[in-house]
Parts: sequence; C-alpha cells; structure tokens
Amino acid sequence: MKFSELVAQLAEAGVIGSFSADADLNIHQVAAIEEAEVGCLSFIEGEGYVRYLQTTQASAVILPNDEVLQQQAQERGIAWISATSPKALFTDAISLFYQPYRPAPGCHPTAIIHESATLGANVSVGAHAVIDAHVTIGDDVCIAANVVLYPGVVIGDRSYLHANCTIHERTQIGVDCIIQSGVVLGAEGFGFVPSASGLKRMEQSGCVVLEAGVEIGCNSTVDRPAVGETRIGANSKIDNLVQIGHGCRIGKNCAICAQVGLAGGVTLGDGVTLAGQVGVANRAKIGAGATASAKTGIHRDVKAGALVSGFPAIDNALWRRSAALYKRLPELYQSLRQIQQQLNRDS
Amino acid sequence: MKFSELVAQLAEAGVIGSFSADADLNIHQVAAIEEAEVGCLSFIEGEGYVRYLQTTQASAVILPNDEVLQQQAQERGIAWISATSPKALFTDAISLFYQPYRPAPGCHPTAIIHESATLGANVSVGAHAVIDAHVTIGDDVCIAANVVLYPGVVIGDRSYLHANCTIHERTQIGVDCIIQSGVVLGAEGFGFVPSASGLKRMEQSGCVVLEAGVEIGCNSTVDRPAVGETRIGANSKIDNLVQIGHGCRIGKNCAICAQVGLAGGVTLGDGVTLAGQVGVANRAKIGAGATASAKTGIHRDVKAGALVSGFPAIDNALWRRSAALYKRLPELYQSLRQIQQQLNRDS
Amino acid sequence: MKFSELVAQLAEAGVIGSFSADADLNIHQVAAIEEAEVGCLSFIEGEGYVRYLQTTQASAVILPNDEVLQQQAQERGIAWISATSPKALFTDAISLFYQPYRPAPGCHPTAIIHESATLGANVSVGAHAVIDAHVTIGDDVCIAANVVLYPGVVIGDRSYLHANCTIHERTQIGVDCIIQSGVVLGAEGFGFVPSASGLKRMEQSGCVVLEAGVEIGCNSTVDRPAVGETRIGANSKIDNLVQIGHGCRIGKNCAICAQVGLAGGVTLGDGVTLAGQVGVANRAKIGAGATASAKTGIHRDVKAGALVSGFPAIDNALWRRSAALYKRLPELYQSLRQIQQQLNRDS
Repeated sequence: MKFSELVAQLAEAGVIGSFSADADLNIHQVAAIEEAEVGCLSFIEGEGYVRYLQTTQASAVILPNDEVLQQQAQERGIAWISATSPKALFTDAISLFYQPYRPAPGCHPTAIIHESATLGANVSVGAHAVIDAHVTIGDDVCIAANVVLYPGVVIGDRSYLHANCTIHERTQIGVDCIIQSGVVLGAEGFGFVPSASGLKRMEQSGCVVLEAGVEIGCNSTVDRPAVGETRIGANSKIDNLVQIGHGCRIGKNCAICAQVGLAGGVTLGDGVTLAGQVGVANRAKIGAGATASAKTGIHRDVKAGALVSGFPAIDNALWRRSAALYKRLPELYQSLRQIQQQLNRDS
Repeated sequence: MKFSELVAQLAEAGVIGSFSADADLNIHQVAAIEEAEVGCLSFIEGEGYVRYLQTTQASAVILPNDEVLQQQAQERGIAWISATSPKALFTDAISLFYQPYRPAPGCHPTAIIHESATLGANVSVGAHAVIDAHVTIGDDVCIAANVVLYPGVVIGDRSYLHANCTIHERTQIGVDCIIQSGVVLGAEGFGFVPSASGLKRMEQSGCVVLEAGVEIGCNSTVDRPAVGETRIGANSKIDNLVQIGHGCRIGKNCAICAQVGLAGGVTLGDGVTLAGQVGVANRAKIGAGATASAKTGIHRDVKAGALVSGFPAIDNALWRRSAALYKRLPELYQSLRQIQQQLNRDS
Repeated sequence: MKFSELVAQLAEAGVIGSFSADADLNIHQVAAIEEAEVGCLSFIEGEGYVRYLQTTQASAVILPNDEVLQQQAQERGIAWISATSPKALFTDAISLFYQPYRPAPGCHPTAIIHESATLGANVSVGAHAVIDAHVTIGDDVCIAANVVLYPGVVIGDRSYLHANCTIHERTQIGVDCIIQSGVVLGAEGFGFVPSASGLKRMEQSGCVVLEAGVEIGCNSTVDRPAVGETRIGANSKIDNLVQIGHGCRIGKNCAICAQVGLAGGVTLGDGVTLAGQVGVANRAKIGAGATASAKTGIHRDVKAGALVSGFPAIDNALWRRSAALYKRLPELYQSLRQIQQQLNRDS
C-alpha cells in the first residue's frame, strides 16, 4: 500500500505523531529492522536498536518521538512515522499486512458431535474433532482438527481452540480465549493421600475456569482440583509448557512465561509477571503487580509490587549483589585464609 | 444425604473416630473449608486451617481427634466427624459425592482397530482412536478419543488412556494405570553418537514398561532406550510435563512432581519423592525413600532416606543454612573488608 | 547371526580393529553390559564399565583397543571386537538387529487431505491425519496417525512426523527430519504489547523453518515470530519438552536436551550443547561450540567455545569452586565471627 494510506490506517488504529513526506512510496511488508528489505516497514524501540538505522534496508520505519532519529532516517532516504511506543504501533501495522489463519464456519463431516451438545452461530468444527455430551459452544467459536472436548465443557463466544488440544469434563472457557495446540485443561490434579497400599488417588471433583481473553500456550496443562475451582483471571496470558496445579487462582492481566510451574493452590494477584522456568510452591500467595525473574524459586508469599529473583526467592536488588559475590567466593575465601594466617602469626 | 448415612458410609470406607449428634442434617456436596457453603462437608488438617473453623459456612467438617476443635464446631452448630487423618477421610467423602467420568464400554465406529489387535471384555474405545497391529488390550480398559497405539503395545486390565495420548511400539502398560492426555510413552530416546557428518541417531530398540497402578500426568514423556527397558515401578505417580529419559528405572511408590526431568539411565529406589522442577543427571542413583525439594539439581548419587536441596544438591539442613547466608553475602563481604582495613591500620 | 558375519557387517558399517576367533558363535541380540544374556552382543566404553567384563553374561563385547581388556574377555570365553569408539560401533550393531517401525506407503482412507495439497512419491499418511490447503509433502515422507498440518506447510523428502503432532501454517520442514509425537511447530509466539485494556496480542506473521536432518523431541514447542523466521540449523537435535521461543536462530549440529527453554530471539551458533533444564533469556547470543551444563541460567551473551554453569551463568571452573564454597558458607561465617571476636578482644 501507499505510505500515505499506511499512515492513515495506523492513525485509525493507534496514536501516531508526525511522519515524513513520502506519500507515494510503496510498502508491502513488515519486517524486523535487521532483516528488513526494500518495501518493508520496520520499527526502532530501545537503545540497542538505534544503530540499525544506519544499515537497515527498510523503506520505512516507525521511530520514537526523537527528532535526531527522524533526521537520520530522512538523510538515508527512509520514510518514517513517529509514535510514543513504536513497538505498539508496529503491532497495529502487522495487522494491516497479515491476518492469522481462521477456518470458515461449518462442521467438518468427520467431526463427532454429541446430540446433546449445543453450538452457537458461525461455529467452525474441524476434521475429527470430538465433542461429547452436554458441551455448550458460543457464537463464532473455532474448534480446530482433532480437538477433544469431554462432557459438560462450556466455551464462550469467539474463542479459538487449536488442533490436538484436550479439554476435560466441566471446564469453562470464557469469551475471546485462545487455546493453543496440545494444551490440556481440566485433567485430574496431582492429589494423593498416603494409604496402607501406597499413594491413593484423591478424586478431583472440581473444575477449571478461564475468564475472558485468556490465552494458553502450546502443550501447557491446567489441572482441576479435588474440590472447587482452578481459575485463571481475565486477559491473563500463559506461554508454552506451563504447569498450573490444581486449585490455583490466577488474577487478571498476568503474564506467565514458558515452563513456569505452579504447584497446588497457588494464588496470584492481578498483573503478576512470572518469567521463564519460575517455580512456585504449594499455596504460596503472590501479591498484585509482583514480578519474578527467570528461574526464580518461590517458597513463601511475595508482597504486592515486589521484584524477586533467585532460589529461594529474595529481593532482586539483594540477589544481584549476592550473585555478584557468589562468583567471588573463591577470592573471599582466600582473603579469609590470609587474615587467619596473619592473626596466627601476630598472636 | 443425611449426616447419619454419610457417617455410616465413611465408616465403611475408612476409619472414623467419634461424631456429633446431627443425624438428620442434609449434606449434598464436598468443599474446601474456605469455600464451603451451607450443605457442604469439609475438613480441617494442619495448623494453618484451624482458624477457618470460626468462619466456615460448611454444615459439617471432618476434624482431627481433638476435643477442643470438636467443642468449637459444636458451639458454631457445625456437625463433625473425627479421624486420625481428616484429609484421607475427606478423600473417601469425595468419592461418595463424585464419580469421575468414564465412557461406556464399546468401540466407536470411527475408531481404527487393526485386525491383529486383541481386545478384552468391556473395553471402551473412543472416536478416532487408532489401534495398530498386534496390540493387546485387557479387560475393562478405556481408550479415549484420538489416542494412538503403535504396533505391539500391551495394556493391562482396567487401565485408562485419556484423549490425545500416544503410546509407541512395544510399550507395556500394566493393570490399573492412568495415562493422562497428551502423554507420549515409548518414543525414541535422545541417543546420538558423534560422527564425521555430525550427530548420528543410535536406534532405540528397547521399550517402556509401566508396572501396575502407575499414573502419568498430562503431556509427560517417557522414552525407550537403545537396548533394554525404561521401567516405572508399581504404584508410582508422575505429574504433568515430566521427562523420563531412556533407560531410567524408577522404583515402586515414587512421587514425581511436575516438570521434573530425569536424564538417561537414572535409577530411583522405592518411595522416592522428587518435588517440582527437579533435575537428575545421567546415570545418577537415588536411594529408596530419598526426597529432593523443588528445583534441586542432582548430579551424583543420593543415599537412601536422604533429604537433598539446591544445585548442586546437598543435604537439606546444610542447604538451608547456606541459603540463609547467601542473602547475607553483601553483609559478610562488608565485614571482611572492615577486618582487612582494621588489620591494615593496626600493622 | 554368526559372529563372523557380524564382524563382516560391522566392518562395512564402521571402523573395527581386531577381533577374536569365534567365527561360529551365534549372536541374536544387542544388550547393555549389565543386562546382557547368553547370545547377546554388548560393549564397554568408559572406566565405570570395565568391571562388568568380569560379570557380564554377554557372549560377545565390543571393546576399546586395549589388549588387557581383550585378554580378560578371552579368559572368560567372551568373543570380542575392538574399536576406537565401542559405543559408535555398537550403534551400528543395533541397526543390524533392529529396524524402527515405519508404516508402508499409502494414504489411510480416513485421512483428510485437502485437494490443493501436493504429495510426493511413496508418502505414508496415517489414519485421521489432517492435511490442509496448499501443503506440500516430499517423497518418502511418513505422516503418522492424527497429525494435523495447517495450511501452507512444506515437508521435505524422507521426513517422519509421529502421531499427534501439530504443524502450524507456513512451517517449513527440511529433508530427513524427525518430528516426535506431540510436537507443536509454528504456533503463535508469546508476543504482547501493553495497552489500555491490558496485554494485546502482537500478530505473529512469521514462520518456523527446520533445515535438513533436524529432530524435535516429544511435546516440544517451536513458536513462529511476529516477523521473519524462527530457524533451526541442519542436523540439530532437540530433546523432549523443549521450548524454542519466537525468532530464535539455532545453528547447525546443536544438541538441546530435555526441558531447555529459549526465550524470544535467542541466537545459538553451530555445535552448541545445552544440557537439561537450561534457560536462555531474550536475545542472548551463544557462540559456536559453547556448552552450558544442566540447569544453567543464561542472561547474557556467551563466548564461542565457553563452558558455562550456574545461575546466573559463569565459567564452569569458577562455578565449581564457588559451588564448593557455597556449601561451606556456614563454616566460613563461623570463621569470620571468630576473627571479629578475636579482634574485639585484642583491641
């Protein structure tokens, strides 16, 4: 599309600042700044990327509101648009050039749909999907190929379940959710009690509830509890290979990165961020807005707004100092030995 | 059901102590103590839960053999039953009010069953399941929708394979096993040898064997070895997203929590417990009854009965002391510097 | 087969040294040295295994080029073959006794193949597989049961996709790749931008590319990026439950063990080895030939050829010394206190 049209459409989608006078330039794709070619729109956000402005082959870039950078683009003959958050505006730009695949409405003839299931309008059900008794599916839902829905599952409007995911009995999925491939929701939690004959299963009579706008990444698992609910709050985003144990309660707008594991009964307030491979022990409570950096092991409650790191988790600033000294332990040990020797000599 | 009937049925299922005189009270559900409503049965076990006895809406509770608590319940008008392990008795109670979903016997017409496969009595095979050549399935087995069994798989009586799991060639599953959704058993182990053209696959000619009563959690993987077996002992319970490498030998009654990873050839004695995200290196041996706390990294053999923590794993009591000092490293460093300065001044 | 024939066939497959004069001995199986029975061929490589030569029931063993061991085998009446790498030659031996299962060419009548898909010669498509629009499949490819291919997927000659894996739109799989069960390739990366209404999805318009000879282990996930590619270099081997984030670029001949997690935009040079449960943070670059030991947490760039460990990652030799002192922290603390007391007394 013409640069002028691109600017116009971006101004509708987000908030733009100023832009260069390259109305007739043709833009046909979006690309990362390091990989962009002629005809591409790219963006720059963050100190580390500024240097690419000197080498990129992009025909247009979204820049921060920074006249120096705008001048540099101008000198290299690169069209530009400025924005408070270039990345956020680039997100809008991607959607102008790309629409994710979504199958047309209709049920594939090989899908098995139980006679007691209820389907809304414009639902798409893929080949070999299996929908069991008393399942309720809202409008504009997409169930991809080979998905299995156990009895009593409820799925809200516009949600998208990707191929090969499995939703167990009585799971409730809200509106506008995305469930990626291989996800398992609502299976039995890991609940056992010791008995004379070894570990004995505690039946898991509860269910899993996903509120509106939740996304669950590929091959992640969310278990149902013995009693009550495992609940994931509205608009929380969960990455791949994450384990959410039975009875967890996750707040709204949380971001949980890949391979995080929450044991049973963990509580997360709203807006919590857990980076990759974090682990949280049974029944720990993490306050609203708290963040744990990658690989943190959380054994106890974490206060709202805290930033924690390490294993066991401690305040991030303290952890940085302790970690810096950890690698100096051989040197500290040496100093200690020298002091001891000096004192022995002196005494 | 009436409280009197509930008491009678629990007395059949487990061992109960005394109980209150509320025979005609109606109980219709089980719930956690914090979430229970009128008509619910709940339980209290552990110091942290005692306080809920003052606020719970439950109509009945299972209590420890503690007359003070029983008196408190009485005063609040809550019916009670006492037990040595309230949680274990509550497990029996759940089973009175809830039966997990199990499809009726019979093979769905869309299931593909090879003519050389052998099925026992009362087997249930779900829609689109695929059962390949020379598979042998015992009595009362349930194969859910979209399960794939490669050639030569053997499944013991009463085992339940949930939707979308995949069982590779020659895997042997014992009686009374539960295989959750997305599990992959018996795929090729990660075995390669260096060669002139890079890493070269070592064919994995062995197989996976699950003894009786094993449970494997969602999306966990158990690989087969180059030669011999990967074996999981009777009644061992494995949680979600666990990796069991080729040639591991796991004893009986082990509990392996979510996201644990065992490299190749690891040996676990009977009754080993590995908490979440533990890793065990190639060929390490862990003695019977040993426990590793969450995120422990085990590089060497662990003695029977040991409790280990940290990375690399050390005795838990030592680890607790070292971890407490880790966060004091900046302070210790400061002390060391002060001593050095004092000695320099003095000399 | 006869020992003489075994020797002849191994000499064709690999490089052998000398061998014993047991031409007519019958060998019918391969086995590990601890588990071998009469009629088995086994091997010994590494100090830890030499002792088994005194107890093994194997009828024949592959030995290092070590006359003492050869003599010991001779004395126990065990046939032997010597090789520079006994394990590599044993790999060849396994292939003489075992061929992995591979279904015959042909499309199962229940497979759903879109009319616009293109299939090469001798392709095998299993029951209930789903192949969507504009998919291109090379010669001798095997697509197992219940695999789902989204639109526009390309698969090179001789690749094998195991049951229940899911390949998302536009993913390109090279020749001679193996995709194990439950793998998800090309799903949407975990890309969001903050917005007034919470986290907002950044559409992932890029794709995943696997070069020739790549293997991906069970239930691993490789995400596609917002723009550009996620690329895995030729002959790289990835184990089970691994997460490869959007936009990662992995070199050739890398080995990535189970449960490793790479965040977005990570770059690995050729020949990198990451042991189990390693994590790598956003955009970190790891140089060619570098190795990270198990559970390492990598936050920053790693130099080519480096061996790193710990969290945060440091040089392995330093980490070993620091880790040894970590468990002596209580003792070091005690020494520090004693010095302080002595100085206080003296002053």
